[in-house]
Amino acid sequence: MFKAVVYVTLRESVLDPQGHAVKGALHTLGFDEVNNARIGKYMELELNTSDRAKAEERVREMCEKLLANTVVEDYRFDIVEG
Amino acid sequence: MFKAVVYVTLRESVLDPQGHAVKGALHTLGFDEVNNARIGKYMELELNTSDRAKAEERVREMCEKLLANTVVEDYRFDIVEG
Repeated sequence: MFKAVVYVTLRESVLDPQGHAVKGALHTLGFDEVNNARIGKYMELELNTSDRAKAEERVREMCEKLLANTVVEDYRFDIVEG
Repeated sequence: MFKAVVYVTLRESVLDPQGHAVKGALHTLGFDEVNNARIGKYMELELNTSDRAKAEERVREMCEKLLANTVVEDYRFDIVEG
């Protein structure tokens, strides 16, 4: 059993309205030291597989097909024992 | 300048309908090895501060007050140079 930990973030060049809203809310609460906030997704997938190389290949395919919108998002992932 | 990387996840005991939907979609696409999927948030905050201990304290406060709903969510964060 492996676990894939996937991070999906907006590309640097893409505006992040959700991050902008979070920054504004933090400023309102007095956290003025926050210069910038960017929000992404974090996913944990439990994989019923015993081959790490195969798991990496499959998770890459999942990211390309479903988990990330590669037009505006970047993704990266780690495969960990679990 | 430090950067805070914040991970907010649903508590283990809380149902994750978004994760359930992602698992279903992955199965539909033929990724049957996915036993479970849980979705969380990933945030990067740029902090205009030079004191790491102070940054940790402030980010903990941000999580408690705004970034996580501690009734149903857990959070953890790293402070990195950036």
